[in-house]
Amino acid sequence: MSFKDNTISFPELIKLKRDGGQLNPAEISTFVHGVTSGDIQDSQIGAMLMAIWQKGMTDEETVALTREMMNSGEIFKWPKEWLVLDKHSTGGVGDKVSLPLAPALAACGCKVPMISGRGLAHTGGTLDKLESIQGFKVNQSVEQILEDVGCCIVGQTKNLVPADSVLYAIRDATSTVDSHPLIISSIISKKGAEGLSALVLDVKFGRAALYKDVDSARSLAQSLITVGNRLGVKTGAVLSRMDTPIGQSVGNAVEVCEALECLKGRGSDDLKELVTYLGGQLLWMCGHSCTVESGKKEIALKLENGEALKKFEAMLMAQGVSADVAHSLCSDGNDYFRHMKRAAHQTELEVPDNGAVLDIDGLALAEVLHKLGAGRSKSGEEIDHSVGAEILVKIGQQIQKGESWIRIHHNSPDLSAHYSKLQKVLVIGSRDEYKSASRVAEFIYPNKPNMS
Amino acid sequence: MSFKDNTISFPELIKLKRDGGQLNPAEISTFVHGVTSGDIQDSQIGAMLMAIWQKGMTDEETVALTREMMNSGEIFKWPKEWLVLDKHSTGGVGDKVSLPLAPALAACGCKVPMISGRGLAHTGGTLDKLESIQGFKVNQSVEQILEDVGCCIVGQTKNLVPADSVLYAIRDATSTVDSHPLIISSIISKKGAEGLSALVLDVKFGRAALYKDVDSARSLAQSLITVGNRLGVKTGAVLSRMDTPIGQSVGNAVEVCEALECLKGRGSDDLKELVTYLGGQLLWMCGHSCTVESGKKEIALKLENGEALKKFEAMLMAQGVSADVAHSLCSDGNDYFRHMKRAAHQTELEVPDNGAVLDIDGLALAEVLHKLGAGRSKSGEEIDHSVGAEILVKIGQQIQKGESWIRIHHNSPDLSAHYSKLQKVLVIGSRDEYKSASRVAEFIYPNKPNMS
Repeated sequence: MSFKDNTISFPELIKLKRDGGQLNPAEISTFVHGVTSGDIQDSQIGAMLMAIWQKGMTDEETVALTREMMNSGEIFKWPKEWLVLDKHSTGGVGDKVSLPLAPALAACGCKVPMISGRGLAHTGGTLDKLESIQGFKVNQSVEQILEDVGCCIVGQTKNLVPADSVLYAIRDATSTVDSHPLIISSIISKKGAEGLSALVLDVKFGRAALYKDVDSARSLAQSLITVGNRLGVKTGAVLSRMDTPIGQSVGNAVEVCEALECLKGRGSDDLKELVTYLGGQLLWMCGHSCTVESGKKEIALKLENGEALKKFEAMLMAQGVSADVAHSLCSDGNDYFRHMKRAAHQTELEVPDNGAVLDIDGLALAEVLHKLGAGRSKSGEEIDHSVGAEILVKIGQQIQKGESWIRIHHNSPDLSAHYSKLQKVLVIGSRDEYKSASRVAEFIYPNKPNMS
Repeated sequence: MSFKDNTISFPELIKLKRDGGQLNPAEISTFVHGVTSGDIQDSQIGAMLMAIWQKGMTDEETVALTREMMNSGEIFKWPKEWLVLDKHSTGGVGDKVSLPLAPALAACGCKVPMISGRGLAHTGGTLDKLESIQGFKVNQSVEQILEDVGCCIVGQTKNLVPADSVLYAIRDATSTVDSHPLIISSIISKKGAEGLSALVLDVKFGRAALYKDVDSARSLAQSLITVGNRLGVKTGAVLSRMDTPIGQSVGNAVEVCEALECLKGRGSDDLKELVTYLGGQLLWMCGHSCTVESGKKEIALKLENGEALKKFEAMLMAQGVSADVAHSLCSDGNDYFRHMKRAAHQTELEVPDNGAVLDIDGLALAEVLHKLGAGRSKSGEEIDHSVGAEILVKIGQQIQKGESWIRIHHNSPDLSAHYSKLQKVLVIGSRDEYKSASRVAEFIYPNKPNMS
């Protein structure tokens, strides 16, 4: 009854999943081809996504869905001797890790064809951050830059996983984003199409992450790893805490400043921790380093000796930034805001009481900055790159009433509507309530990686 | 979090139902207004329908949905003294009940603004049947015909329940037709918009019905009655068996012939049983008759004394059929096929063995006729009105090998591909295996009707 001439109709396909059935690879292929060709109606895609949200998918189904999506467009092929690496983060507040990581890996001789996204809701986007820089272009051709520089950070092209572009927009409109098989197939199909040697996933958990607890994050990470490895990409994952912002800045231009500081061997410890950890794992997984530790050390060295910075400068030029601007940003002692728009106002807020910094609520801060123009509520909206915040205190630090704890960069002159929420971002208490926790909680890799 | 400026976004609305929440009347109004205005995307409608299919709706939600859909377009208002009646059937094989019922009720002095649909899959449509008649038009204005004749059978207009037109097409494409709240809101919103005094629902159960068992049918009927009465329409229901075809014909033109026979006081008993039962209930519910029995008798009288036939003739003329054709169809001794297309071939099939007729499989027969052109697989397809079948034997009847049991009207010359399925339609056995069952199984009405 469900097959006619060996093809299944779209309503029959939806009915199968609606009733909790398992779709076979041919049925999943029919669905993805329908999405890419436009033969399946938007209403049918919406219904199918909701049925998948409700009924889930087996690992087999998720692998088939991911493979079909990956094959819906162009797939990069690289010279055999290249070690091609990438990182994916599930999204956080102040997450500028990609900016130092990609050039640091390139400085180690690896290739990093990083295809990134834009921010949505409270989560920032790597492309938005880089576009704070005068002249930076995200629609460059990957091949030539990888050959010449070794790394690039670009946007998704029309040819790469076109099925995901359609499905993602509809997931966003239909409240079907947070479904394991849909998250996994979206992430891994794009990374699979990049033709990677190894992939590391930064799966966040905590207040400002999609998953609030480490167990849910671990479950997602394990499925991502299973599907990634089934599609032939050596895949590992880091579970990292996402309660307080990463580093000391949140926004777009301000995060570029912090990334540049990191590339100059300075900047905050937790950012450096994440960059070296993720990079070290990648170097180990692809066989470049014998241990994670030696990989981490090599990444740290490239940040300290300026080689990562040189790669970043070359990447900026390859992606449309003038040599003068790129050189100026990557030199010491320059005002970064000569080459990035600076907000009209910088307002510092005072600490209300003496005490120790117990918490900085990344989600609450991101929500205020979003309202000030740093984020977008739906895809396609313009954002204000100059809006952001510099956090002037660190977790665990003893602070005094009256000193400044945050500097808000804003263009709408009046901040008063946001004061009460901003004051809740900072949690002060007694020093003995403070518990330190490293940002990286766990590393997951299913098998000993192939030391090829 | 879910409300901004007192309005809820469409993704938030979908999320609420996705998670099994109950939508309040304002939220349901937002959804239905979005559907009617086109502000909500098709993908969002598909996802919402699937979420409703998965999570269901409370009676409160279904009432609100039905009311909003009803109010999405024009609502008929009639003179206070009119008794305005209608019947709705959940769809069966050979169901031509509306054709004699509407004029019989009009002959009793009631008004019947019957807004009917077209056939889909194995289920026939009243409009398709009537369009077998030369000149018959389904897009007539209801008001004048009700005033002049008392009954009409027309198609849904753009102005009547526009939300249902959008939702129904998407339900069909997304396998979300068979959901109680969606079935109920679709049926009752249209009937509510007709401005009825009373409504009777013919809820089918059995092999050729949406619901296979009487309990599921009863459950649907009870919800339909609850919602109908909540919207101010006195609503009752009949549960009727839908295993064998109703009457002795299945198709379009052939069913018009049988309906005309019924209007002439002849034809099969089960058709007459359904017509008088449904009509009797309506006459009782609206207060025209003191008992169901007296209502049934009055309907039977109108079929026997030719008054229903006169109304039918007048209705045909009011709906575009020439006086000559209408008169010829409604007179004795005329060949009906002078005014309806006759199929090129009539093939009679022989009984393979002696025995008693135990069963005639309505669903299997309808599926063959569908393939021969009598039905449509998706809405908007053309159908062949001349294709159909006359069943020459009756359930319980003793038959002899070699005698004809069915006459197929067909245009594609070769029937051989369908012989094996057609032979399974007829089930022969020993006379003592035969159990008679009346077509009407139960009548449900929640309270004693208002004898106004």
